[in-house]
Formats: sequence, C-alpha cells, structure tokens
Amino acid sequence: MSVGINRYKADLRDFDFVLLEQFKLGTLVGQGPFEAWDVDQSRAILSEGYRFVKDELGPLHASGDREGCRLENGQVRTPKGFKEAWAKVYETGFKSLVADVQYGGQGAPFMLYVLLEELMSGANIAFSMYPGLTHGAVDLVMEFGTPDQKKRYVEPMLTGKWAGTMCLTEPHAGSDVGSARTSARRLPDGRYAVKGTKIYISGGDQDITENIVHLVLARVEGAPAGTKGLSLFIVPKMKVKADGTLDGSNDVATASIEHKMGINGSATCVLNFGENDACVGELVGTVENVGMPQMFKMMNGARIAVGVQGLGLMGSAYLNALEYAKDRKQGPSIKNFKDATAPRVAIVEHADIRRMLLDAKAHVEGSRALVMKLAAHWDRAHQLKGKDDEQAAYHHGQVELLTPIVKAFTTDEAFRVCENMIQVYGGAGYLKDWPVEQYARDAKILSIYEGTNHIQAMDLVGRKMGQAGGANYMAFMQDVGNFLEAQRGHPRLGEDVQQLAAALEAVQASAMLLLGWSQGGQLQNVPLAANRFLQMMGRLTVGWLLLEQALIADTALQEGAAADKAFYEGKVYGARYFARNVLPLVEGSAKVLAAADTSALDMPLEAFGS
Amino acid sequence: MSVGINRYKADLRDFDFVLLEQFKLGTLVGQGPFEAWDVDQSRAILSEGYRFVKDELGPLHASGDREGCRLENGQVRTPKGFKEAWAKVYETGFKSLVADVQYGGQGAPFMLYVLLEELMSGANIAFSMYPGLTHGAVDLVMEFGTPDQKKRYVEPMLTGKWAGTMCLTEPHAGSDVGSARTSARRLPDGRYAVKGTKIYISGGDQDITENIVHLVLARVEGAPAGTKGLSLFIVPKMKVKADGTLDGSNDVATASIEHKMGINGSATCVLNFGENDACVGELVGTVENVGMPQMFKMMNGARIAVGVQGLGLMGSAYLNALEYAKDRKQGPSIKNFKDATAPRVAIVEHADIRRMLLDAKAHVEGSRALVMKLAAHWDRAHQLKGKDDEQAAYHHGQVELLTPIVKAFTTDEAFRVCENMIQVYGGAGYLKDWPVEQYARDAKILSIYEGTNHIQAMDLVGRKMGQAGGANYMAFMQDVGNFLEAQRGHPRLGEDVQQLAAALEAVQASAMLLLGWSQGGQLQNVPLAANRFLQMMGRLTVGWLLLEQALIADTALQEGAAADKAFYEGKVYGARYFARNVLPLVEGSAKVLAAADTSALDMPLEAFGS
Repeated sequence: MSVGINRYKADLRDFDFVLLEQFKLGTLVGQGPFEAWDVDQSRAILSEGYRFVKDELGPLHASGDREGCRLENGQVRTPKGFKEAWAKVYETGFKSLVADVQYGGQGAPFMLYVLLEELMSGANIAFSMYPGLTHGAVDLVMEFGTPDQKKRYVEPMLTGKWAGTMCLTEPHAGSDVGSARTSARRLPDGRYAVKGTKIYISGGDQDITENIVHLVLARVEGAPAGTKGLSLFIVPKMKVKADGTLDGSNDVATASIEHKMGINGSATCVLNFGENDACVGELVGTVENVGMPQMFKMMNGARIAVGVQGLGLMGSAYLNALEYAKDRKQGPSIKNFKDATAPRVAIVEHADIRRMLLDAKAHVEGSRALVMKLAAHWDRAHQLKGKDDEQAAYHHGQVELLTPIVKAFTTDEAFRVCENMIQVYGGAGYLKDWPVEQYARDAKILSIYEGTNHIQAMDLVGRKMGQAGGANYMAFMQDVGNFLEAQRGHPRLGEDVQQLAAALEAVQASAMLLLGWSQGGQLQNVPLAANRFLQMMGRLTVGWLLLEQALIADTALQEGAAADKAFYEGKVYGARYFARNVLPLVEGSAKVLAAADTSALDMPLEAFGS
Repeated sequence: MSVGINRYKADLRDFDFVLLEQFKLGTLVGQGPFEAWDVDQSRAILSEGYRFVKDELGPLHASGDREGCRLENGQVRTPKGFKEAWAKVYETGFKSLVADVQYGGQGAPFMLYVLLEELMSGANIAFSMYPGLTHGAVDLVMEFGTPDQKKRYVEPMLTGKWAGTMCLTEPHAGSDVGSARTSARRLPDGRYAVKGTKIYISGGDQDITENIVHLVLARVEGAPAGTKGLSLFIVPKMKVKADGTLDGSNDVATASIEHKMGINGSATCVLNFGENDACVGELVGTVENVGMPQMFKMMNGARIAVGVQGLGLMGSAYLNALEYAKDRKQGPSIKNFKDATAPRVAIVEHADIRRMLLDAKAHVEGSRALVMKLAAHWDRAHQLKGKDDEQAAYHHGQVELLTPIVKAFTTDEAFRVCENMIQVYGGAGYLKDWPVEQYARDAKILSIYEGTNHIQAMDLVGRKMGQAGGANYMAFMQDVGNFLEAQRGHPRLGEDVQQLAAALEAVQASAMLLLGWSQGGQLQNVPLAANRFLQMMGRLTVGWLLLEQALIADTALQEGAAADKAFYEGKVYGARYFARNVLPLVEGSAKVLAAADTSALDMPLEAFGS
C-alpha cells in the first residue's frame, strides 16, 4: 500500500517546451505588465513547484482519499496533514503569483500559473480545491468589490489566512442556476439578511482557516425571476468587523457533507444560511442583480481550472503507467511468441501497451498545449490591452472560444486516459496499491462540476461560435488555415498536416449545419449535436497544436539536437499518431452529425422503458 | 444514503423479447435435451429470479461495497449478509439449473441461465462471483474429473455446501499464464504435493462455506516450459476423505486480500499453497500437462459470464438513470429557454439527457441480444449434437467466434454506459447515495479479468477468425449478408439496414487486411489493430441484432400490438439510433485501421518520456 507515498509525476521537459518553445514566454516577459519576469525565474518556479508538490501534496493524495472528511458537531474535519500543507502552500507564494502587485501579488503570466496549477492539481486534486476556490473568490472581490471590501477580504484570502468558496447550486437548482431561491433582505445598514440552502459547496467548511468567505448567489426581495434577478453576496462564516477582526458566528451551518466516488479529501457541503435569521451578507460592489455576470468572472476561471485539473490527473496517470510498463515483465516479445522459454520482456515492449501509452501521451501533451494556448492568449490580451485594442480583442476572443473546449474536451479525455492507464497496469491498476484507480475516480467529477460538459458544448455552439458576430470562431479557423497553407507541403510532416485539412473541412461543414439549424427553425438538432461538435473542435485544435509541436521538434532534430533527441522524436511520433488515428475520426463525426438523427427526441417517453 | 436498499432494476419485458421473440425459446424446448422445459416455466423462473435478487441480493450491493472484506487471523470475513444470501441462492436451485440431470441438475437451456446470471450479477456482482466461480469449478470437474472426483466434489459444489475457485495468476504470471511456477510433486499415493503462490483469486477464502475447492494450475516436476507443461489440480482448502468428509487443513493459506476500486464484497486473495509442505492436490482426470485446455473449458464459460456481468451492471445503470431523469426537474423546456418563469421540466425532456439514455438503451439491449445470440447457438449446438453434426458444428463455431466479442465488447460498453449514466444524474451521480458510481467502479474490472480485452481481441483475430479454416467467421458474415439481402428494401427500415451494409463491407475489408498482415510478414500490425477490429465486429453484430429486433417490432406494430406499443416503438428507435449514430463509425475505424500506423512501435522507448 502506497498511502502516504508521493506518486505524482510530471514531465517538466514538456512544461519547458510548451512554455518556451511553443508559446514563447520569452517574447512576453520583460515588458509591461510582465516587466518583472524573465524566463529563468519562471523555470525556477516550476522546478521549485514540482519539488514542493512532490514533497508536500503528493504524499497526502492517497491518505486523504482513504481518510476522507468528517462532519463532527457541525464542524468539518479535513484529512490529516491538510492544514499543515495549506500553511506551506501559502508560504511558497504560489497562490499570489498572478495577483496584481497592488494587492500584494506578483503579477506573473497566466501561462506560468496554469502550469503550477497543473502541478498542484495533479499531485493532490482534493487538497488543491481549497486554495483553488479561494483563488477564484479573491479574484472576484479584486475585480468587483468595493474599496472597503477589497481592504477587508483580499489580503486575508491572498495570504491564506482565510479561504473562499463559491455558492451557486441549490437542491432544485443545479444546471438551472436561475431557479435559485436563496433570498436576501435589505437591512437598514445597507447589508442584507441572507437565507437559504446551498449544496455541493466545495470547501464549504473545513478546519484549516479561521474564516471562510462564501460568495453566495441570492435573490433580493422583489428582484426578477431567473438569472437576471440574482445578486452576489460576500457571506463570511465568521462576521468580519470594519477593522478586519472576527466578530463571532454569522449563522452559516454545515448541514451535511457528501460521500463521493472520488476527491474525498475535498469537503462537499450542504450549507444552511440564516437558519436563525442571523446571517448577514454584503453585496459585492454596489449594484444588485448583476450577480451572474460577476459570478461568471469567477466561473470562467474555474472552468479553465477544471480543464487543468484533468490535465494534472491524466499527466500523472500516463507517467505512472509508463513507469510501471517499463518495470513490469510479462510474456515474451511477439517475435518469440511461440517459444515458451523466450525471455520475458517489459510490457512496454508489447504493441497494445505501447498503443495505449502513445494515445495517452498524445492526449496529455495535446491537452497541455490546448490549455497553454488559452493561457498564452490570456497573457497577450492582458499585455496588449490599451496598447493594441484590436489585437487584444482577438486574443480575448480566443480565450472565450477556447474556454468551453478546455473545460470539456480536456476532462472527457482525462477520464478516458485514466481508464486506459488502468488497463496498462492490468489487474494491478484496479488495486488501491497504485494511483490510477484513484485518478479515474477523482477525474469523474470533472465532466460535471463548474457546468456539465454539455453546458460547455452549448456554450460553445450557442454563444461562443457566434460571439462578436462570429469573429472569434472565424479568426480561429483562419489561424488553422494559415498553418495548413504554410505546412501542407512539409517534406516530412506534410502528409500528417493533410489529415488536419480534412478535419478542418469537416468542422467547417458541421459548423455551417449548426448555424443553419439555429437560424432555420431546427433548433432541436443543436443540443443533440453539441457534444459531438465540441469533441470535433477539441480534436481539431489538439491535432493542430501537436503538429505545430512536431514541426518545432522536426526543426530541432534537423539541427541535430543531440541532448533532447528522444524528447523531440516523441513529439513527432505523438503528433503523427494523433493525425493518423484520431483526426480521421473527425470526418466520421461530421457525417453522423450531418445525418441529424432525432430519434432521441422523436421517441415517446414511454418507449424508454421503466 | 441507500445502503441496504435494493437499487437493482431489470426490464423483464426485454428478457421476454430476446428469449421468446428473437431467439425463440419455444422452438428449442419440449424436445431433447430440453424435453422437460417449456416457455411458461422459463418465464416463471425469470420472474421469480427477479423477485429473489431484488429481495435478497440487491440490498447487499451497497452495504457489501462499503463494508468490504477483511482478513482476520488468516480467515477472510465477507460482508454482513453474504453467508445468509448464499444459503438462499442455493435453496432456489438457480445454480444447478443448467447442470446435467445425472448430477442433480435441471438441464435447462443456457439462454435461461444467462438471463438469470444477468439478474444475479446486476443485483450484486461482488456477491455473485462466489457462486459464479463455484459454478465454473463444478462444470470443470463434471467434464474432466475422474468418477471418484465427480462423486466427491460435484454434489457439494452444486448444492452450495462447498465453493470453488480458479487459480491461474501468479505474481509474475498474469496474461502470461504459461510462466506459472507453482509446482506439483508426485506422491507415492498418486496425489501431488502442491507448492506456490497464486494471486487475484476471487473467493480464494471466505467464511461462507465449510470448504473451498481450488482448481490450481501447476507444473509437475520435469514438465515442459510454457502452457504445455501445466496440469490442473483439485486442491481443497480442507482435505477431503474418500467418503467426502473433511479431514483438517490442507496447508492453503490466505496471505493477504486486495483493496480495490470496486467489487469490494468479493474477496480477492493471495493464496500460499504448501507453505509447510503439507498441501496435497489431485490431478483433474488422469493425464498430466493438459491443464490449459481443461482450464479453458472453465475460462470460456467465465468469459461469457464476464460479458453477462457487464450486461447486468449497464442494464441497471440505464434503468436507474432513466428513473432519475423522469423524476428530477431542472430547467425549462428548450422551447421556453428564454423565459425564466417557464415551468421546470423533468430532465428526461432535455435533448442531451435523452441522447445519453437512448445510447445506453441501444447498447444495453444490443449487448443483451449479443449475449443471447451466443447462448442460443450454445443451446442449438447442444441439441443438435449427434443428430445433425454439421449444424451442431456451425452453432458451436458461432459460440467460439462470439465469445471474445461478448467478453470484450460488452464490458467496454458497460463501463461507457455507467460513465454516461453518472452524467445523466449530474452531481448526484458522483455521490454514493445513488448506485451508478458503484456500477462504474465495479465494471472497471471487467475489461481486465478472465483475459484482458486485448487478449480477447487477439483471440478473435489470431484464433477465432481463422478457426475451422475460417468457416466460423465466413458463416457469420454470410448470416449478416443474408439478413441484408432480405431486408435492405424494407419499406420503413430499409435505409437503416443500408447502414449495416456499409459496416459489413468495412469489417470485411479490415478482415482481409488483418489476414494479409498475418500471412505477409507484417505481423506487428495485428496487435495494434486488434482492439479496433473487435470493436468493429461488436458494433456490426449489435447493429444487426438491433435491426433484427426492430423488424420483429415493426411487424408487431403493423399488426397493431396495442398493449406493447411503447415497447416495440422503443425497439425501432433504438435500432435506428444505433444504425445512424454508431454503425457509421465502423467505416471510420476501417479507414484508420487501413492506414496501419505503426508509430507506437516505431517510436524509441526513450521518446515516451520518463
């Protein structure tokens, strides 16, 4: 049993590759707003981050799962070691890395933060949710809070003195957030009496920090129905005085915690606000009924973070399975399969094991490139804002377009990779002695929370594709097209680039169909096809980015990159595998999408059975 | 929390449909060797079986998972209620249903047994493994044992007084069974001293029965290397005297039990045989070195049983998710999606939920048809043996061909269906309050044990396709072809039948390629393509059987089957969905297969990373 042993693995060489060679951090740093940053320092942070998560978070991954959280007399108890790990995380300064310097942050590029988050989530997703959501909460207060709120809430959350949560879901209102019934009644002092029940609140209670700042969606009395009548409130667990000191309980009770398939170290709480009519909240900012757009600020970050969680889990699943496959001997080489006395070989010599590993490698590294592409656009948008607004808008548009793909595609693939890596281990993979079964259990939540993957697909086809008059989507397709034009004649990779061309055409044709359905009164076809289309977009994007990587690697190999020869060869083979085994499936998907089968809608409900 | 509550659901109407309408039990029973059987009696057994598993096994599914097994002073303790449930199972007589009447069995059709096993596995897979493996062990002794062995071992195992196991795997010998090192030394009395360690032994120890009959693969001193030198031994936990009474410990020790992702109620044991050189085994039959073919008898049955386990889990996952989707209200209808005050509808009204449910329905019912097709061939082979040996050989050949498909395709799809049914529930599906997360955890082992799904794929392409000079495969394709010829012009389903034609062509083309590779020195391509090909065969077969069902349903609807209208409509829509959404993917797979990408083999090992 390896409870208490670090099992997290990351390939920092690939981190370097995406950060420096593919997305060129060097051309971003050294100038505003990243003038304080350089490449060496960024690499040092990653290498220090890896050491840190291996030493401090990885060893709590299995033990936190086995122990889980408990609710004792209304107080959540987190697994052994979580409180100490929290303190160490905030000592490192990682959590204030991207925060603005005016709030005590370090103003680092988002690209760097994303890779650090991959390390944290991969080493211990359940633990990392506590600081992860705190990061989202502090972001939100920094963006929308009043000066007084910033003064009282930002610093304690940024330094880890307090934690933060986001409270959206209610027993009857999950995907349908607009049905939330939690109420807010204006008090004479300008604050609000908050009353209602929120469920699925990650870190809703814990025994780590002395206070928890809940960001709660609630409806002010008399506000409109639906999402347009929701306001966002700061509702701390312990009341906060004007000087920032605590002032006793704020009538927020933990009614129960959930027992789950995975992420058992993360306390998933049912919270009752105002059971005794003594729960007081402050409106975030000064305007009512803008809670949804405010919360979306936090949720978009959270959606990207979920994609990064998937990346962390599948990355470590792959590297653990690879290590096992190199070590575990079983059966002879296929060349000697009839010779019972032939030497046994490591299972990584067997074709099917290699196929599964290469498939995982391509999806892991492709997903990392996808996430980093989003982050690179994020940083460029930030850098160009106010300097070149047109370019900034382009970059911001790509962030918008890619967010649902990062969230849904990466997490669906993460679960698939974890499943396949269990298979690489064989029977051992099913045992708790090895980390992969837990990765699979942990990963299953990713397609559900922060908006199910179908909600992401509908966000993509219903909102993002048409956003800015379709400009974001068209710019994306133009970028892929430019790549194709430039590289389709490549002497060594041209054939694989052609596969991308076919996938691009298939996506375009499907996009036109979706548009036609939306505008032509066949709206019902859209949700039936949305998940499939998001997968097609994900595969197209990943295939493109892997080929881009292969070209960089090919150049390096041509120039005789002796030290990194194997790494660059891996890049070429990974891209080739994806181009020949995955990209062709995009055409098949387009065909099915075009058939526009509506059986699922046409069938009478009774025909499903009972 | 629903620990202790039955959550198992089966659709007995579909059981009736496959048994009577599609595979026509009525034409099988009433004549030898099933002369004692009729349709009404068979239906009564299924309906009694469903009641039984709901009352007795279903309530132990969650509780057995939470409690798990313990090893106390060398003795395994099974979860609460398992011992009592075992006694009740053997009171029902279900486990002796298919056994030959000469041994006290009831000589029932295999088709009936398979459906009963679906009920048992679906209600409680972990529990059902104890009697399931006992059934395999007794089958083997009945087939290969000496008269004396049959006398002493069959009756106690058939009546549940004793249990049975199969002991193949060793720490270094999993898929590579031939490497087994457990030794057998001839003793003067004709028995053998057995010594060695076996791992992953399901039911290797328990506190349910007074004795456990282990069937152990071991190598007699001086026997050849590899599988050809393995012999099979009966090694009881407690020694058995000539009169069948027990005679003290046989030096079989449970060294440890595994902690697993799922099937936690099933004790997975490490067994040490002969730690004190006092473990005595009897050779099964009288001939050494035929242990592998003997064990394969048991293993083939076990492989079919694993497919049936997958069916049981996905069947119940589907029906549970369907019930939840009908009950759970969330969001407005898409027709009113902009109206925040529109009434909330059950989530089964939402397109993506319906799509996932219909996909599950088609895969569940298609897998059931696949399993039943195998069982129907089994029964016909049994019935025609000695009467029409050519037809019997045809039916037996189809059993052989379909076995790896039943094992691998059904279990891969079972995991997929469980995953998707979690998604239907949303956040609730991730909680232990509902059964689907456990179904997914339980189902993950199915692609691994009794020969990994890659081993099944290699069995299909390397052995079964070429068996009998290719006759079994060609007869299968001929059967599909005949169906196509007869139905491609069908007024209502002809268009969907055409999809089958395209899939058939794709499979044929791929089969030719595989054959060419095997014979043309490109053997290395075969294992890379085998899993893909098995999936194609599975989809083709399921698509065919679903269309066959749709035609039966269509006829019934044309004849105005008022009472069952919804059921038959469901059959038509399910087949149509599969034909339009899944069958077209077979062509895409064939394309990828034809590209014969060998990146996974060509890539240097170092390029995978570290």
